[in-house]
Amino acid sequence: MSKRKLLRVVFEPDGTELLVPAGTLLSRAAAAAGYGIETPCGGMGICGKCKVLVKGELSQPDSSERRLLTQQELAEGFRLACRTKVSADITVSIPPESRSRVQKILSQGVFRQCEVDSRIRKTYCRLDPPSLDDERAEFERLADHLSKEEITLRPNLSVVRTISHALREADYRVTAVLYENELIALEPGDTTSQCYGIAYDLGSTTIVGYLLDLSTGRELAVSALMNPQTVYGEDLVSRISFATTQDKGAELLRAAAVDALSRIAKMLVDSAGIKLENVYKATVVGNTCMTHLLLGINVASLGQSPYVPAVCSDIRVSARELGLPIASEAPVIVLPNVAGFVGSDLVAVLLSVEWEKDGRTRLAVDIGTNGEMALLHGGKTYVCSAAAGPAFEGAGISCGMRGSPGAIDSVVISDDVYISTIENRRPVGICGSGLVDAVAQMLDAGIIDESGRMLSPDEAADLPEPIRRRLIHGENGPEFVLAERRQSGTGKPITLTHTDIRHLQLAKGSIRAAVATLIRAAGASEDDLSEILLAGAFGNYIRVESAIRIGLIPCVPRDKVVSIGNAAGTGARLALLCEQEMQTARELARKAEHLELAVSPDYQSELMECMMFPRVCAPAH
Amino acid sequence: MSKRKLLRVVFEPDGTELLVPAGTLLSRAAAAAGYGIETPCGGMGICGKCKVLVKGELSQPDSSERRLLTQQELAEGFRLACRTKVSADITVSIPPESRSRVQKILSQGVFRQCEVDSRIRKTYCRLDPPSLDDERAEFERLADHLSKEEITLRPNLSVVRTISHALREADYRVTAVLYENELIALEPGDTTSQCYGIAYDLGSTTIVGYLLDLSTGRELAVSALMNPQTVYGEDLVSRISFATTQDKGAELLRAAAVDALSRIAKMLVDSAGIKLENVYKATVVGNTCMTHLLLGINVASLGQSPYVPAVCSDIRVSARELGLPIASEAPVIVLPNVAGFVGSDLVAVLLSVEWEKDGRTRLAVDIGTNGEMALLHGGKTYVCSAAAGPAFEGAGISCGMRGSPGAIDSVVISDDVYISTIENRRPVGICGSGLVDAVAQMLDAGIIDESGRMLSPDEAADLPEPIRRRLIHGENGPEFVLAERRQSGTGKPITLTHTDIRHLQLAKGSIRAAVATLIRAAGASEDDLSEILLAGAFGNYIRVESAIRIGLIPCVPRDKVVSIGNAAGTGARLALLCEQEMQTARELARKAEHLELAVSPDYQSELMECMMFPRVCAPAH
Repeated sequence: MSKRKLLRVVFEPDGTELLVPAGTLLSRAAAAAGYGIETPCGGMGICGKCKVLVKGELSQPDSSERRLLTQQELAEGFRLACRTKVSADITVSIPPESRSRVQKILSQGVFRQCEVDSRIRKTYCRLDPPSLDDERAEFERLADHLSKEEITLRPNLSVVRTISHALREADYRVTAVLYENELIALEPGDTTSQCYGIAYDLGSTTIVGYLLDLSTGRELAVSALMNPQTVYGEDLVSRISFATTQDKGAELLRAAAVDALSRIAKMLVDSAGIKLENVYKATVVGNTCMTHLLLGINVASLGQSPYVPAVCSDIRVSARELGLPIASEAPVIVLPNVAGFVGSDLVAVLLSVEWEKDGRTRLAVDIGTNGEMALLHGGKTYVCSAAAGPAFEGAGISCGMRGSPGAIDSVVISDDVYISTIENRRPVGICGSGLVDAVAQMLDAGIIDESGRMLSPDEAADLPEPIRRRLIHGENGPEFVLAERRQSGTGKPITLTHTDIRHLQLAKGSIRAAVATLIRAAGASEDDLSEILLAGAFGNYIRVESAIRIGLIPCVPRDKVVSIGNAAGTGARLALLCEQEMQTARELARKAEHLELAVSPDYQSELMECMMFPRVCAPAH
Repeated sequence: MSKRKLLRVVFEPDGTELLVPAGTLLSRAAAAAGYGIETPCGGMGICGKCKVLVKGELSQPDSSERRLLTQQELAEGFRLACRTKVSADITVSIPPESRSRVQKILSQGVFRQCEVDSRIRKTYCRLDPPSLDDERAEFERLADHLSKEEITLRPNLSVVRTISHALREADYRVTAVLYENELIALEPGDTTSQCYGIAYDLGSTTIVGYLLDLSTGRELAVSALMNPQTVYGEDLVSRISFATTQDKGAELLRAAAVDALSRIAKMLVDSAGIKLENVYKATVVGNTCMTHLLLGINVASLGQSPYVPAVCSDIRVSARELGLPIASEAPVIVLPNVAGFVGSDLVAVLLSVEWEKDGRTRLAVDIGTNGEMALLHGGKTYVCSAAAGPAFEGAGISCGMRGSPGAIDSVVISDDVYISTIENRRPVGICGSGLVDAVAQMLDAGIIDESGRMLSPDEAADLPEPIRRRLIHGENGPEFVLAERRQSGTGKPITLTHTDIRHLQLAKGSIRAAVATLIRAAGASEDDLSEILLAGAFGNYIRVESAIRIGLIPCVPRDKVVSIGNAAGTGARLALLCEQEMQTARELARKAEHLELAVSPDYQSELMECMMFPRVCAPAH
């Protein structure tokens, strides 16, 4: 990657600053800084909803902007955020009507029962003040008091620095906050009822935070933000490149992640009506690259074969050292990784489903930009990752988009094509689950064959008329119209092209080949699978029948496939709440056997085969 | 203390900067910044040796300076450092001929044998580089290698941050540095032969550092500096006041201590020809106030009754967090305190003499500005501190001075008065050990009586003529001339006044009364003492017979009194070298019973009695 110039964008009235590469879209920059902007047209320059006021030098407005903005607006400096690229240091104000809610984000997962044993302990202490008859040191005064509860208190220098003042100000009535017997905070009065923690799922696209009461285990709030690192690179590879080739690149990525975690913490406590300083513990799960960047660990080794991480062990760092605005000595624990592209997020998924509970053969698949998956067979866990590409997130598909309002998310083809969209808006594109649905239905309807070839309009004589007329000649071959121009929110038809189908074949083929390789390496067969667990947003929204129909996952009875939602977040919550769960996570990470698909001859031959669509699927039972 | 304006003094050509209160003598400021200046006349403005070149605004030269500096020197900006006070921000150059060696400092102590078990371990590792067949993470690669030696390696985030780069640069031939199984450094190649630690004795006046080889226990170098905090306050009370009332006062004191420890570290490694980054551990002993200030712990509670410390436990902090320029993740361990004015220095003294080795009754006395002492009796240790005042350090005595060249350090009175001085210079004053000697001899000669009253010249008819003529009428009563004007290096006679004797009585009385109170509290008697240990510079240089003669210590046979030198430094070295010794130090600190003399009725009545001089001393055996 050549070095790109970084420019400063200031968002008013908050004054939030962001450094972005020259050429970054204003809408992307705004998202990275935590400001959602309305883009009902999917950023096509059609709806004119994303008006922002810019001070500073910019390129001339393009034709969309000249059409959608008035002369006066243009003169005042209004621009469309989805059309305007940053080319100099600027200041941006986003009018209230242009602000949007965050995109549809999965932030609920199943949450199994666990013991509440976070190792955070708050004890209210009424101490005798020092006197000439009792000259014990302040810390030992507290330690002696707690020794009655069989606690051997350990000092934390930051707390000890101010302990004299803190005790005197509180008249020796204080609440001691302990993490594994270390004194991590001291508060005036009795604050024992306020004891919270945050579990973070640090995704490369989305970051979710869960606020939990550490006394009861109850969940108080959930908040999410787009990962602001996207402004420096869409996928992991480009972020690693940015971190290793750009001046201060790694530091910018680190700061962006810390900033997002901090903003989520503030949103969470605001929403629950509690205080940041009463949050005493945090856990973080994410892929290896994300958590390395967060911790300031060099990611160079992740960018070149054989893609080894710097560390797999779990890492503890204080909130102060990390830069999180919760209680400053609170432990922040990043869960363990398995390999360069199998991170603590997959470990957390396994933790969430009591992975080894009954020893039956199970498969877990977490599909994002990368597919990470695990197979348990014969008491042993095998894991791998496959680069699925961005097709399942809507990228690389001609009318593809993320799962935001207006995306086609399900398709039925019978006498005609019937679609539904997210929030029932006019369709502006198609998201991953819609794509899988559409192709499954097109296979059933005979619009494409097992090789993925789409009928040309001339070959479609046998199809019902309403469907046949949707097959059109596009620029590069046949296209299938899902939503016609008059129906569409973009003023153009929403279609799937021959090339789109090929992209999907490659994506689903790489996932399915990885699954097949895992099964083969374990000496198992698909028939052994007692369960297939689909994790992540995609796994949650996808229609299981369609996933099976296109061959994304093995052909098993429908009831053996379970969508487990944001299971990574669930694992992070379990590790936050319970030390025994954290210990289980360590063991899962340590014992898992990683398969490197790049050197697997099995994988290469499976890949060729798995690119095909299955003729039919008839599960054995 | 009213807030004083702080001014900036820059020393050229090094650029060392120091903030000092307005009115600070330039010679004091230079000493605090680590520059010794020649003052053979004891800073009396007589010898003109302390010439410095000053840029910036100053008061007019005084009469000494106009006499001792030429017109041209004055015009160029030369001043005498001992006469000039800082009144504005200035820059100072010290010509080579004005630079002096450091003052006489005790830095050798007895050093008993101990096991070498510092918990620092260096292991040379030849690792297999990552390959497609071996994708273990970099840290786990190292951990696996070390697990063969039964080590369970723990990650340190700072080291892990750069581990990938470090391993690759070193071609996977590295030396791992561990502290209690934590990876604290990683070095290219085989550096196992380079493994060092520093033990610090952080005194309120003098700071001594010892460089030790952690593999062999061998001592490689010793260095010492004046404590630069003296510029902000001579004694503990004034430093506590400075820390608690002056803006950023505590931070200035902290920075001054860290700076001195850092400079000592550099001197030590330069002297031994090793590198700072090969120093992996440090221990620090000092009085409670000194170590609190060093660690940035609030000292307000030490400044008001009942004078409790914030913490007594030992504290571990990384060199990085403390600000020491040794290996950045090296543990710096500050030994435990007993009470507000009984610090880890006394604990280290006890450690150095195997305090509880045979259970016999022992007394240890460490005399500095404060006297700290311990008594072992009946298996129990009693400790206390007594404010002796600065008389033993030469302050408050009309011709008193520190133990630097030209100080009278021993006195014999027979047919006349015979003196010796440090480095055999012409006498310029008298230091603590000389004072004790002089008074003991004056008692024997009948020049003063048991009440401390000095004969007037008229009452001295029975004394030999050479002695009698030394008794003169001074401004405030009789004075005794130790060195006559023609003999003196200051051009004035060196005398002891009636008031000087009273100051000494108060100082020795407070120490002796504390000893008596300890003995009484333990239910012992002076006859039980099997040993009296005298620690510290004063304890090393004093003539034991004289100390007994004036009643500073109990009257025991001479061979029961042992000077143990800088035993605090010895204890720091033991704790550095051996974890078991550190554990013993913890137990000594925890078990010691502290007596608060301020509330002891015994002490008050003892004090009255102990101010007297003993008639004779006739030890029982």
